[in-house]
Amino acid sequence: MRVIRNPRKLNRILERTSGNRKNIGLVPTMGALHLGHLSLIKQARRENNTVVVSIFVNPAQFGAGEDLKKYPRPLNRDLALCRAAGVDFVFLPNAKIIYPRGYSTFVNVEGLSNLLCGAARPGHFRGVATIVAKLLNIIGPSVLYLGQKDAQQAIIIKRMVEDLNFPVKVKIMPIVRQKDGLALSSRNVYLNKKQRFDALVLSKALSLAKSLFKAGVRDSSRIINRMRQLINRKKQAKIDYLAIVDLEKLEKIKKIDRNCLVALAVKFGNTRLIDNTVINYA
Amino acid sequence: MRVIRNPRKLNRILERTSGNRKNIGLVPTMGALHLGHLSLIKQARRENNTVVVSIFVNPAQFGAGEDLKKYPRPLNRDLALCRAAGVDFVFLPNAKIIYPRGYSTFVNVEGLSNLLCGAARPGHFRGVATIVAKLLNIIGPSVLYLGQKDAQQAIIIKRMVEDLNFPVKVKIMPIVRQKDGLALSSRNVYLNKKQRFDALVLSKALSLAKSLFKAGVRDSSRIINRMRQLINRKKQAKIDYLAIVDLEKLEKIKKIDRNCLVALAVKFGNTRLIDNTVINYA
Repeated sequence: MRVIRNPRKLNRILERTSGNRKNIGLVPTMGALHLGHLSLIKQARRENNTVVVSIFVNPAQFGAGEDLKKYPRPLNRDLALCRAAGVDFVFLPNAKIIYPRGYSTFVNVEGLSNLLCGAARPGHFRGVATIVAKLLNIIGPSVLYLGQKDAQQAIIIKRMVEDLNFPVKVKIMPIVRQKDGLALSSRNVYLNKKQRFDALVLSKALSLAKSLFKAGVRDSSRIINRMRQLINRKKQAKIDYLAIVDLEKLEKIKKIDRNCLVALAVKFGNTRLIDNTVINYA
Repeated sequence: MRVIRNPRKLNRILERTSGNRKNIGLVPTMGALHLGHLSLIKQARRENNTVVVSIFVNPAQFGAGEDLKKYPRPLNRDLALCRAAGVDFVFLPNAKIIYPRGYSTFVNVEGLSNLLCGAARPGHFRGVATIVAKLLNIIGPSVLYLGQKDAQQAIIIKRMVEDLNFPVKVKIMPIVRQKDGLALSSRNVYLNKKQRFDALVLSKALSLAKSLFKAGVRDSSRIINRMRQLINRKKQAKIDYLAIVDLEKLEKIKKIDRNCLVALAVKFGNTRLIDNTVINYA
């Protein structure tokens, strides 16, 4: 496994290694790898000759007052995990080489970027789209692996790839959960014991939504109200949003009459957790 | 020469043709080709195995009330010129396939896009950056050829290519002028006889700027005032801007103490013409 910090160097090596750039799988991460990331890496390993993992805590997607500085950076552990998973290249740039002096260009997926998480985090998805565009150009992968955990991010990146004609396939891998249901997230380490326990209510609320749908409830606001009641029993939980939305446009759906995404963001103390599930209508 | 209208088809063919995508020269145009475009195509022909010319009147770079509808589209003539120049592929998409329903993604080079032409044409350079990003992804050229005539556009695209790590080299080719000095432009056909004659004042004003610099004048506002006096002798001429700016940041320079760009935009009737020259300080 090689660790490369310079974008041009990586681009040069990959062009040489892979000839026409086909058959490179890219897993973009901010490090602090967990089994969710590893499921992406394993899938990439199965499907490609060359696997690249990028590790970059991207300042452009953090807002003022967010956790850029304290975001976990267990680099040695991350590299060991990548090595064990058979990764070929870790791209490990610093912020100066990604956003040098005079940097001015941003990619924005309009509309989608202002909904759900975008409403609470202005500029967040602009930062995400921009760094992914850069990674696609530096690495030139044939397949880009993303996690369903960040559902809105996956939808926005798919839209960007299609809109800007990036010659890459996007694969979304399912959410990985702990046995008790908590979705894996690098931010889970911020939770204290009580918060960690209370956070189980998120996956429970999503299960409740699925159960209600199975029982025949189609009215979104009825489902959301029941979810809200459940979550609000935890006194520390502060709901940012609960939403049932269209899978492509992320627009709110009043009556469930097609496949849709049930998504939520809830704060426990300073830690904002997100989770989601897809309801298959058919 | 093949004319291809479908982005995916072109991408597929070029990947097959050119192996690792090296050695493709791209000349992006809006058609209405003149000797300026042809100088780019010739250069591309000299330097690459495969030459692609795109012809697309890009709606995203036209503002409300601009000349999108009446922009000249002499397609058969354009194709004949490409064929004669030895072009391999003409990419000729329509607006629906470039901006399909639900299209949402835009590339913006902040700062630079609001100056000079961008001040009078909000959104123009966002449209330019976006279409060029798309063309780069569809075609995957090794060299992108642009004209110095659209100096701000060239600077913005260079910035975008560098910022977003597009693996392409940008080459800027010199302005081609008619014998009497008028810079070639597809919009020159809008000019009536009188306007065509008066428009000579633009290149004359740029020559004046160079002469004043050679005579030792370093004060930008003095040079600009003399240019303004010259242009204003033509009663139909309406100055949009006259500026002496930094070659990278496009910021106004008070005293010429480095290489700089002298740029102008002037309207004759409804026709807005631009022209520029570089002053080499050293």
